Amino acid sequence: MTEHSTAALDVALAYHRAWTSHDFDRAMTYIAEDIVCQAPAGRLDGADAFRGFMGPFAQILTRSSLIAAFGDDAKAVLMYDIDTIPVQDAPGAECLTVRDGKIEHMRIIFDRLPFDAARRAAASGQPAGDE
Amino acid sequence: MTEHSTAALDVALAYHRAWTSHDFDRAMTYIAEDIVCQAPAGRLDGADAFRGFMGPFAQILTRSSLIAAFGDDAKAVLMYDIDTIPVQDAPGAECLTVRDGKIEHMRIIFDRLPFDAARRAAASGQPAGDE
Repeated sequence: MTEHSTAALDVALAYHRAWTSHDFDRAMTYIAEDIVCQAPAGRLDGADAFRGFMGPFAQILTRSSLIAAFGDDAKAVLMYDIDTIPVQDAPGAECLTVRDGKIEHMRIIFDRLPFDAARRAAASGQPAGDE
Repeated sequence: MTEHSTAALDVALAYHRAWTSHDFDRAMTYIAEDIVCQAPAGRLDGADAFRGFMGPFAQILTRSSLIAAFGDDAKAVLMYDIDTIPVQDAPGAECLTVRDGKIEHMRIIFDRLPFDAARRAAASGQPAGDE
């Protein structure tokens, strides 16, 4: 994949490489204390709330690969494919805004439906199927 | 929003503007006959299958705004926020590969969960709630 180095993209990729290599403490060094994260389930305010959301998610990651990474001085977009313990082939996209080397805003898009199906299946004791 | 014109991005944005302005026939002029589209529900092969998926989706669109748009000569990434008739605030991201002015590959990411909830609510006659 071609990467186009810019200030925001460098930070976004450093964050991405850290959390996808299970070094979440290092990933958090790129997160601003007052980050605002818009995730599928709603808005998260501040680094503690962000860690509470992304930390457990990083723990269930089993594989990742970048699909695309672009950015300019202030903003970067990453798209990636990941496998997780409950769901295989769970791509995500992030738009990250960077200020002074820290990510101050992140918009995350991914499909919650297969995670919801896996959760329901686990609760019922049945394997998840396509709906 | 800053836009960085490139060959692939120009085509991606022309496609985006067409479908978000409800001119789906024009949007299809940017789609290669042999497009491969990886959507949340699975892979779609060819322009007819693509139209069958995206055409009805375009019809339920009520508002759209671009969050980010980047690209190079061959690849572009768009992130956008949209409202639809069944679901408000339904952001999506696309990674598009362009060849000879046509989109030959598209990866689309969006959260199907609120659409599934709206569908279930409509089927049951009850308003959709957060799950």
